[in-house]
Amino acid sequence: METIRARIDGGFWHTYQALVRERVLPYQWKAMNDEIPDVPKSHSMQNFRIAAGQAGGSYEGMVFQDSDLSKWLEAVGYVLMDDPEGASALEEHAREAVGLIAAAQQPDGYINTYFTVKEPGRRWTNLRDAHELYCAGHLIEAGVSMFRGTGDRKLLDVVRRLADLIDATFGVEKGKIRGYPGHEEVELALIKLYRLTGERRYLERAQYFIDERGREPSFFDLEAEAPGFVSIFGAKPLDYYQAHAPVREQREATGHAVRAMYLYTAMADMVLETGDPSLREACDGLWESTTDRKMYLTGGIGASAVHESFSADFDLPNDTAYAETCAAIGLFLFASRMVRIHDEARYADAMERCLYNGILSGISLDGERYFYVNPLEVVPAVCDANGTYQSVKYRRRPWYGCACCPPNVARLLASLGEYVYHLQGDVLYADLYHEGALSAEVGGASVTIRQKTGYPWTDTVTFDVEPVSPMEFTLALRVPAWCRTPSLSVNGRPVEEAAGADGYVRMRRTWRNGDRLVLTLPMCAQRVAADPRVRADYAKVAIQRGPLVYCLEEEDNGPVLFTIRLPSSAPLTVAERPDLLGGVVTITAAGTSPAPGSSGGGLYGVRGHDHPLIDRPLLFIPYYAWANRAPGEMLVWVRE
Amino acid sequence: METIRARIDGGFWHTYQALVRERVLPYQWKAMNDEIPDVPKSHSMQNFRIAAGQAGGSYEGMVFQDSDLSKWLEAVGYVLMDDPEGASALEEHAREAVGLIAAAQQPDGYINTYFTVKEPGRRWTNLRDAHELYCAGHLIEAGVSMFRGTGDRKLLDVVRRLADLIDATFGVEKGKIRGYPGHEEVELALIKLYRLTGERRYLERAQYFIDERGREPSFFDLEAEAPGFVSIFGAKPLDYYQAHAPVREQREATGHAVRAMYLYTAMADMVLETGDPSLREACDGLWESTTDRKMYLTGGIGASAVHESFSADFDLPNDTAYAETCAAIGLFLFASRMVRIHDEARYADAMERCLYNGILSGISLDGERYFYVNPLEVVPAVCDANGTYQSVKYRRRPWYGCACCPPNVARLLASLGEYVYHLQGDVLYADLYHEGALSAEVGGASVTIRQKTGYPWTDTVTFDVEPVSPMEFTLALRVPAWCRTPSLSVNGRPVEEAAGADGYVRMRRTWRNGDRLVLTLPMCAQRVAADPRVRADYAKVAIQRGPLVYCLEEEDNGPVLFTIRLPSSAPLTVAERPDLLGGVVTITAAGTSPAPGSSGGGLYGVRGHDHPLIDRPLLFIPYYAWANRAPGEMLVWVRE
Repeated sequence: METIRARIDGGFWHTYQALVRERVLPYQWKAMNDEIPDVPKSHSMQNFRIAAGQAGGSYEGMVFQDSDLSKWLEAVGYVLMDDPEGASALEEHAREAVGLIAAAQQPDGYINTYFTVKEPGRRWTNLRDAHELYCAGHLIEAGVSMFRGTGDRKLLDVVRRLADLIDATFGVEKGKIRGYPGHEEVELALIKLYRLTGERRYLERAQYFIDERGREPSFFDLEAEAPGFVSIFGAKPLDYYQAHAPVREQREATGHAVRAMYLYTAMADMVLETGDPSLREACDGLWESTTDRKMYLTGGIGASAVHESFSADFDLPNDTAYAETCAAIGLFLFASRMVRIHDEARYADAMERCLYNGILSGISLDGERYFYVNPLEVVPAVCDANGTYQSVKYRRRPWYGCACCPPNVARLLASLGEYVYHLQGDVLYADLYHEGALSAEVGGASVTIRQKTGYPWTDTVTFDVEPVSPMEFTLALRVPAWCRTPSLSVNGRPVEEAAGADGYVRMRRTWRNGDRLVLTLPMCAQRVAADPRVRADYAKVAIQRGPLVYCLEEEDNGPVLFTIRLPSSAPLTVAERPDLLGGVVTITAAGTSPAPGSSGGGLYGVRGHDHPLIDRPLLFIPYYAWANRAPGEMLVWVRE
Repeated sequence: METIRARIDGGFWHTYQALVRERVLPYQWKAMNDEIPDVPKSHSMQNFRIAAGQAGGSYEGMVFQDSDLSKWLEAVGYVLMDDPEGASALEEHAREAVGLIAAAQQPDGYINTYFTVKEPGRRWTNLRDAHELYCAGHLIEAGVSMFRGTGDRKLLDVVRRLADLIDATFGVEKGKIRGYPGHEEVELALIKLYRLTGERRYLERAQYFIDERGREPSFFDLEAEAPGFVSIFGAKPLDYYQAHAPVREQREATGHAVRAMYLYTAMADMVLETGDPSLREACDGLWESTTDRKMYLTGGIGASAVHESFSADFDLPNDTAYAETCAAIGLFLFASRMVRIHDEARYADAMERCLYNGILSGISLDGERYFYVNPLEVVPAVCDANGTYQSVKYRRRPWYGCACCPPNVARLLASLGEYVYHLQGDVLYADLYHEGALSAEVGGASVTIRQKTGYPWTDTVTFDVEPVSPMEFTLALRVPAWCRTPSLSVNGRPVEEAAGADGYVRMRRTWRNGDRLVLTLPMCAQRVAADPRVRADYAKVAIQRGPLVYCLEEEDNGPVLFTIRLPSSAPLTVAERPDLLGGVVTITAAGTSPAPGSSGGGLYGVRGHDHPLIDRPLLFIPYYAWANRAPGEMLVWVRE
């Protein structure tokens, strides 16, 4: 798979990428250097200093604390790909971090500050809990990204030595540990490293980790029985680690949602590399399980806070939702591989669903506050008083003791250019509508495509096609499932071309410099209903416009949002509000609510007196923008 | 307060009391002797054997394991009060247990097998966690009950020595520990012991424990700072123990619901003894907080599994409900004291609400399976898959590692005779409609009152009044709040007498032997609505008939119960079903549900296609009887 990367240079995501560059990554650098007061201490950089022998003291933080820095470095790599000149301060910080990482690398290539500083001699003895291979994976991804962003081989060489050590340590061969990680990640990282270097050993080692998972007797059981085994997080059911069955036999998304997504992403990557049909079948089944039965409207996944895990089919509670930001990122990654396997728009629809909703809600408008958990309904008084809601917050936090999500959002947003298009032969698929420019080889010749759009607020996407010389190829434009009446024009002339069953509308022609293709995706405010088996959403509707899920906030709509009814006949009115929440399109409607004080007598009363209703004007804002003002209630699914 | 005790000798509760005597208590005896296979081990009796020096081995079980046996003994005492001849096997077991307890008593009066066996020398060093005074309280209650049931002083003498030790150990006086229990119970037990013995020291020590709670600085903080303090359950917020403020300042029901109820019960007991106005005000405030804002329709309380505690006002989730059986029992006890303070029927209404619903649901129809948690909505697949529901079971269990509830239900059901009437001067209040006979002194003369009723199935309650000679007094009969059209006759002649504002209809006359008073409380099936601030019940109704809350079960109604709508116009039809669930009255109605297969395409779809509805005949059964057949869904609150 060749990565073709657009440079986002305008519009919605350019603003976010500038935020990542100017505020998010500098802020996160401070956090990882423990320079932000009154937040949980990161100690990430300090752990590396200690491991590198440049500082004293002891290891602090989660066992996987190294990965925060790695994700941050990966993000910086993406920023530098797009903007090599405009991020010199970040590049300098990154150089410092890379120097430390290199200094912390052990003579045999090993890097992990937890084991180097805190548990020397216990390396690879607790693959189930200790996240060593997970941290290695994130570091490898950082090495790949930093090389691509700077051309500097320093971190890449470091991570290759680490990858070589992993290759030499794990496998079915005699003398190797026949294990696999408790938290997947190294698999997809090794495939990425293979793609960059062409070194097949990395691909084969990823294949080994994928194939080995779930074999009986369970490696995790054997490992835990070894003398001196020290549990860190306690044994969990094997499906928590997706290790309850060989991956090719798995058809149901289970266990820890982030783990699941990183595994499925690696499996799909492997399909892209090998075409392996049984692995493809597993990916297809796991995709359906995830997105047809276990996904929130926002693309959030992992309904249960307990084990941060998937629940039963259609169990998608809105108020006790977990829907970790990292899990939505993981689903985006899985989807990005699936669209490349199948060339079907529905996978890119899912990318869009995650990106504009369940991922973007993870970060505040100012870039310095984060959600780990992304509920679809919040009543602050309940979150405060009822421990069942203890992981559900109604204010984003400046940092977390377990800070996996903040740098994960940063790297995902910084990497978005990689996901705008994909190429299959001489068919260039436009998957996401992000303003920017792509320069790629299509059918053996160079072409630049400039996309201009006000997406997700406005409905027109313009493609200016600039081949170095006239050339024939197909441009396949995704028609999102939410759009019923797309239209297309080429050089000003309407084209009657419907989207195929794959969800793409295709234009094959000999493209000449100056050709302009305009796709219009009319965005009306829509009522969305869930499958009636979703108990939490039954007899309710959500409002969506284009790719954006909307919500009600107390700030605009007053309290006790759950009493609101939105009659099915009430018109939905769209308005641009450049003054609100950084500039959003709002949706208003006339709802109803019980009249105040109409509660009658007592907690329970014999029914008879209907509660009088009053009109309640409703203002919906995009879900991603919630919790950026005064704390209060929030609601996505409204009674109809 | 004089206890006047009716002997229940027929009808609904007689059947249950026979079950308690014939099956429940023998079964629980086996459980406490570890004679039931495949259930969590109790070790209660064995701990006493070890403490008494009659067996070797080590302590096992919860730190408060002793209390299981005490509650069981208390229950046996009640059984023997009603039926001194018919329970000889139980009496023999009880004698064995009492002998062991006496043998386990230390020379200074101390009894607690955990500390005697496992932590000698650490007595009274962790009042916060170790439940020593809680266990002492239950043992004192057992001693009082066993004496009343048998006339044998043996256990009473044992517990008096324990109470004397507690009196000598705790208090404001120099040299005493100025502490109070982390789990209330000893307070109400000491008041009970005072009432039996007339020994004021016990009342005063209860007063001390009540007054001391919540004083600053917190005793629990001081205790935890002591050298060598060993935490058992970890520090919790002070309101978990109702120790966040002096009890007289408390107006909101907070923290662990069972703890709260046992405290409030003791406070109300103290008001009955002393008339203390500030304590009465606190009781009133806490009562309102509990029953006006934090109580399930079933009388269940404690909405949150986390800390088994109260949540915010009106936060009463049906599916993640905790509603521990013991907490409903505690509310019953609190209510039974409040009705004696205020002589208002609404408190007895609450007793009835708890008894017929949230308490009785805690025990299976065969008496050998128990619920700890009593949800109002259950979807088994969700309970199995989503850890948020980990405490919610859909099958009653044969025993629990923490087995507080099973013997608590047993003692409550065995004690019911104490709660049928209460006496205030020469007014005899009939609070509960349980068939049986009361012999009491009213206004200085003896009277027997025989109550006959098919309650809760039928609507007539007959009182045959049998004074030893003609005597004037008032009989005040509770008119439950659910009854709109009560009627009364005396000796066959209708009486036009409405209930007063206190909810009692009063008959004052000179009663002669043979007088018959008939109260009719028409029971129609009713729709009940919750205060609209209860999010979980909004736009839903529950069905009630008489004191019984009803529910739908999958067994009768098929799955996906949450999709059911019960139109407000649908008639509710009542039917006697002697064949069903030990004989119940069912309610049927015509509901609707989406047609099977009408889910449309995909998990989320643009709204437009309304789901076609199909008729769905509904069968409601009494809530208490749920989960006695095949496991399946259950639902109390139905969409209207």
